[in-house]
Amino acid sequence: MPDKSPVVIDLKFDRESVVAGLKNAFPGREIIDMALPENAGRDLSGSAYAVVWKPDPALFSRMPDLKVIFSGGAGVDHILTAYELPDVPIVRFVDRSLTDRMSEWVVLQCLMHLRRSLAYARQQKNHEWRELDPQPEACDVTVGVMGLGVLGQDAVRKLRVMGFEVVGWSRSMKSIEGVETFDEAGLDAFLARTDILVGLLPLTEETRGIYNTSLFAKLRQGGALEKPVFLNAGRGGSQVEADIVSALASGILGAVSLDVFEKEPLASESPLWAFENVIITPHAAASSDVRALFRHAERQMTRLEGGEALQHVVDRVAGY
Amino acid sequence: MPDKSPVVIDLKFDRESVVAGLKNAFPGREIIDMALPENAGRDLSGSAYAVVWKPDPALFSRMPDLKVIFSGGAGVDHILTAYELPDVPIVRFVDRSLTDRMSEWVVLQCLMHLRRSLAYARQQKNHEWRELDPQPEACDVTVGVMGLGVLGQDAVRKLRVMGFEVVGWSRSMKSIEGVETFDEAGLDAFLARTDILVGLLPLTEETRGIYNTSLFAKLRQGGALEKPVFLNAGRGGSQVEADIVSALASGILGAVSLDVFEKEPLASESPLWAFENVIITPHAAASSDVRALFRHAERQMTRLEGGEALQHVVDRVAGY
Ligand SMILES: NC(=O)c1ccc[n+]([C@@H]2O[C@H](COP(=O)([O-])OP(=O)(O)OC[C@H]3O[C@@H](n4cnc5c(N)ncnc54)[C@H](OP(=O)(O)O)[C@@H]3O)[C@@H](O)[C@H]2O)c1
Ligand SMILES: NC(=O)c1ccc[n+]([C@@H]2O[C@H](COP(=O)([O-])OP(=O)(O)OC[C@H]3O[C@@H](n4cnc5c(N)ncnc54)[C@H](OP(=O)(O)O)[C@@H]3O)[C@@H](O)[C@H]2O)c1
Repeated sequence: MPDKSPVVIDLKFDRESVVAGLKNAFPGREIIDMALPENAGRDLSGSAYAVVWKPDPALFSRMPDLKVIFSGGAGVDHILTAYELPDVPIVRFVDRSLTDRMSEWVVLQCLMHLRRSLAYARQQKNHEWRELDPQPEACDVTVGVMGLGVLGQDAVRKLRVMGFEVVGWSRSMKSIEGVETFDEAGLDAFLARTDILVGLLPLTEETRGIYNTSLFAKLRQGGALEKPVFLNAGRGGSQVEADIVSALASGILGAVSLDVFEKEPLASESPLWAFENVIITPHAAASSDVRALFRHAERQMTRLEGGEALQHVVDRVAGY
Repeated sequence: MPDKSPVVIDLKFDRESVVAGLKNAFPGREIIDMALPENAGRDLSGSAYAVVWKPDPALFSRMPDLKVIFSGGAGVDHILTAYELPDVPIVRFVDRSLTDRMSEWVVLQCLMHLRRSLAYARQQKNHEWRELDPQPEACDVTVGVMGLGVLGQDAVRKLRVMGFEVVGWSRSMKSIEGVETFDEAGLDAFLARTDILVGLLPLTEETRGIYNTSLFAKLRQGGALEKPVFLNAGRGGSQVEADIVSALASGILGAVSLDVFEKEPLASESPLWAFENVIITPHAAASSDVRALFRHAERQMTRLEGGEALQHVVDRVAGY
């Protein structure tokens, strides 16, 4: 194996951005881009690294010298749940820009529901001038964040600055200034405090289908927004869309913002598109910036080759 | 005059909220509510205080013992520009909740334009799943705030936390950490840096009609959002709506959010309602909370009666 191992790329991202990102990426390394037809049958031995998003199921079995798998996104369910995996570390993507953009999405959605943007947009369509009452402010509303990892903790901090009351829930207990936190056992108490629920959980065996009828029924009713609001930008596999639809129909949920779905793209027939109090974005809350991803992967390769420990390694037992 | 002077109320606000707010307000003072028919011809001598929003033009001439005028809102143009005024201090309304709610509106509008909420809403209507490119993040965009007073400075701080680059403009030079500031002479340089212009100016002789074709033409073109965006939540008299319409039509402005208008309510015939890249709210960015207003006025009365100086007194020459 040469000094700097080649890197195999198998990213099911927008092709243009991958091509642009690969220019000047991984200086001094050979890049084997699996999207190019000439690499289809190629011998991949000697390559220690794979940077992947929804890779070909056979890819890893073709890489006898694989040392590290780099996930193209913050989540690794696209690798863990779908393939037989070699026993090598999986490094996930953690990045300042990705984190900031997720918090933009979370704060934007919370403010849109707080300030009733959808109702005002309907009035605007009718050229109707009317102040909606009541007009709660952020501090009248409690946002409950499920998942206090890299993304959840940044969102919590920014929601606090915007004036929201914030509570948080995670597997292990966290201590965050100004935020009441709950661990797994405290789920019901957490939900009973929550007016706007924000899902920022990874998809694991434990979180699959967690956003369902029974959970929605435990959210606070009659808070400043009257009915609870549900946001999800973690993974669609954590939500039961049929339950979201019936909670909206029955009034258990007042409004919803979803960036992720059980199956993506969301089917054109899904009833979710047409609810007047639902906001849909196409898994765009915090897309990976390809250049930043390659910089991050290169940094970790350099660490490993210099004898340092890898960062952001996934716990394969916990599943994230 | 008794120890605690009576207070005259003439607030053209939502009547219900005034009635509710007056319960338990101004303990120990007589309240003369000019909205009640029995007070129409009443002798108002002996009353030192008036709390007003768009008051009856003849009100002040009926108050020979008037000592302080309290504005029902942060702005005082509704008093200064329309009436002959006795030479007494005018105290404007400054309040934590009003400030926070204005910053909610400003951050919400900036994020909606940054994250292309209107375009995604149109796609949702068509059940269309498509990521819009490019996807700039907050730090790629410079928000320029005109007016660095109580409201402008709070908005600037929160925009910074959300990641935006921020520049600011005010009559006298300000120093704000992390923000490049400009004074009156620096207007053109300020505009040339600005991708999203936020208007938080009071309406004065100097600011009337300031948001016009010639100003829009000086905003930065070709920034991360391609075309400049204009937001106004100060006063409608500062904008020339015909110029906004033509700047939108010609592409000098890419998008607009307006909470205030030359004439309110905005006429149903205004072309502004129907632009697909315009967001209209009915002067609701930061409505005065009536209870908070009365608490604030009572606090100032107590200060005055205790020999302390009034706070938030308007500079009648500057006009705000
Ligand atoms: N929509 C998008 O564009 C987008 C973009 C990026 C990421 N994402 C999603 O966001 C997820 C979170 O990202 P991250 O970087 O914040 O991940 P992270 O740093 O690994 O944090 C995950 C958080 O979830 C908690 N958690 C996991 N399993 C749990 C369980 N069973 N019960 C309670 N809490 C549990 C963890 O608890 P502990 O703190 O106790 O470990 C941790 O607080 C990713 O996995 C990805 O799926 C979506
Ligand atoms: N839409 C709503 O719901 C709503 C609610 C509340 C208030 N408002 C409006 O918001 C306005 C601002 O409120 P505020 O509490 O922030 O007022 P403020 O504290 O008096 O601040 C006014 C700011 O504007 C600047 N300014 C005034 N005239 C100027 C000029 N000719 N050139 C440059 N800068 C000038 C001032 O400069 P200096 O710092 O140099 O004095 C100051 O920074 C109010 O007057 C009101 O009209 C709207």
